[in-house]
Amino acid sequence: MKRYTLTLAYNGKNYFGWQIQPHQISVQETIEDALTKLHRNEPVKVVGCGRTDSGVHAKKYVLHFDFPEIPDCRQFCYQLNKMLPDDIAVFSCEEKTDDFHARFDAKARTYRYFVHTKKDCFNFENSWYVNFPVDFDKMQDATEILFGRQDFASFSKSRTDVKTTFCEISEAKWVKTGESTYYFEITADRFLRNMVRAIVGTLFEIGKGKMTKEEFRAIIATKDRRLAGTSVPGHALFLWEIEY
Amino acid sequence: MKRYTLTLAYNGKNYFGWQIQPHQISVQETIEDALTKLHRNEPVKVVGCGRTDSGVHAKKYVLHFDFPEIPDCRQFCYQLNKMLPDDIAVFSCEEKTDDFHARFDAKARTYRYFVHTKKDCFNFENSWYVNFPVDFDKMQDATEILFGRQDFASFSKSRTDVKTTFCEISEAKWVKTGESTYYFEITADRFLRNMVRAIVGTLFEIGKGKMTKEEFRAIIATKDRRLAGTSVPGHALFLWEIEY
Repeated sequence: MKRYTLTLAYNGKNYFGWQIQPHQISVQETIEDALTKLHRNEPVKVVGCGRTDSGVHAKKYVLHFDFPEIPDCRQFCYQLNKMLPDDIAVFSCEEKTDDFHARFDAKARTYRYFVHTKKDCFNFENSWYVNFPVDFDKMQDATEILFGRQDFASFSKSRTDVKTTFCEISEAKWVKTGESTYYFEITADRFLRNMVRAIVGTLFEIGKGKMTKEEFRAIIATKDRRLAGTSVPGHALFLWEIEY
Repeated sequence: MKRYTLTLAYNGKNYFGWQIQPHQISVQETIEDALTKLHRNEPVKVVGCGRTDSGVHAKKYVLHFDFPEIPDCRQFCYQLNKMLPDDIAVFSCEEKTDDFHARFDAKARTYRYFVHTKKDCFNFENSWYVNFPVDFDKMQDATEILFGRQDFASFSKSRTDVKTTFCEISEAKWVKTGESTYYFEITADRFLRNMVRAIVGTLFEIGKGKMTKEEFRAIIATKDRRLAGTSVPGHALFLWEIEY
C-alpha cells in the first residue's frame, strides 16, 4: 500500500459536514464510498485536513488515504470525478511518503466568509445576505484584536475534543469585491469548532454598533462563549486554502 | 392608474419559466401575487419583456404594470423584495408614459450561455459542464454565419404563435473568462422560442467536428429544425441585457 493525497473542492450545501455521521450524508463517506468501489469493494478510509460543519464549503481540501499503487493519477482522478456527484470535484492525486498526515502536517488554514448587502438572486446560496446597516470600517478596525497566539475558548462551540484552545491567527481582514459584496478572510495554524462563524458574528455586533472593540478584546480575555456574538450561517463559509 | 416598470433579476432554477402556466410555478405569477398583495388584493397583471423557458435565468428583466400612484418607488421595491423569495430580486421601479410596453418597445435583447470544461462544484447549477473535447476557435469562427437579418425558422421550436421567423442578429461571440470557463453572447432585435439553445447546440456540433461551417449555413437556408443540433440545457442560459 502507498500513501496518496487528493486535493479537491466541495459544495457543502447538501452535506451534513465533512465528517462521517450516523444516518446523515457526509462528504467523507461519499468519497470513501467512491474510493472503496475503485478498490474493488475493499474498504478505503480517508483522513481529511479538518472538519467542516453542516453546509460549509471547501474551495480547497486535502485528504490522505492508503491504496495499492496507482499507475496513472490523472486517470484515477478522472474515474473518481465520474463516480462522485456534481458537488464534489477532485483536482489532483499525489503520492506521498508513508508518514504524511493531511491534518497534522497542515501548517496553516484559510477561511473566507462571504456577505452581500443587496438582494442577489444568484449568490444567496454561497453568501450571507446582510439586510441591516453595518459599518465595515469598524469591523475591519476590530480585526487587529485577533492577531497572534491567543486562547480562543470564547469562540469555540465545545472544548471536549481538543487539548488546547490556543490558536495563532496570522491574517484577518475584510475585502470589498464589488458594490455590495465583501468577504472576511482569516488564516491561522488551527481553528476551533465554530470559531470562524463565532468571530464573524461578533464582528457584526461591532459593525452594528452594539459592541465596542474593547468589549471584543474583553470577550477573548474572559474565555466565556456566552459573551460572544451569535454565529453567522454556515452556507457562506468556505475553507479556502490549506498550506503544508 | 399609472404605468410603471420594474427592473429585476431572477434565478430560474425553481420556476417553470417566466410565463404563467396552470399547475406550475412561474416567475410572472410569483410577481403578480406580490403586487396584488401590495394593491390590497386587487389583481395586478404584469407584461414582461419576453418569455424565458423552464430553468432559464434573467440577469436583467423588465416588465410593465398599471398601479395607483406610487409615492416612493424605492420604498416600493424594498417592500416587494421582502415579499418575494430569495431567487427574485427587484432593482428599481420607474414611472413611464401610458403607452410604454415592456415587450414591444424593447429594441434589443442579449443572452449569455455559460459553459465550463472542468468539473466545478460551485458553478454547475448556472453553467453547462462540457465534458467532451471541443474546439472553441471553430465555434467562434462559425458565429459569422449568424449575423444580419435572416429567417431562423430552423432554430425555433414552434412557429404557431409568431407571424414571422425573421430576426436580426447584431452580435454573436464566444468569450473565454478563465482557464476552463466560457460564455456565448448573442444580441438580436428578437429571438424565437428555443432559438439561443438550438444555435448553441448547433455550434457545439461544429466544435466537436461533426458539422462544418457550410453545413451550418445550409441549415439556416433550409429552415428545417430537424437538421439543427440538439438544444443545450436551459440552466446555463441567462437573459442578460435588454435595451429600449
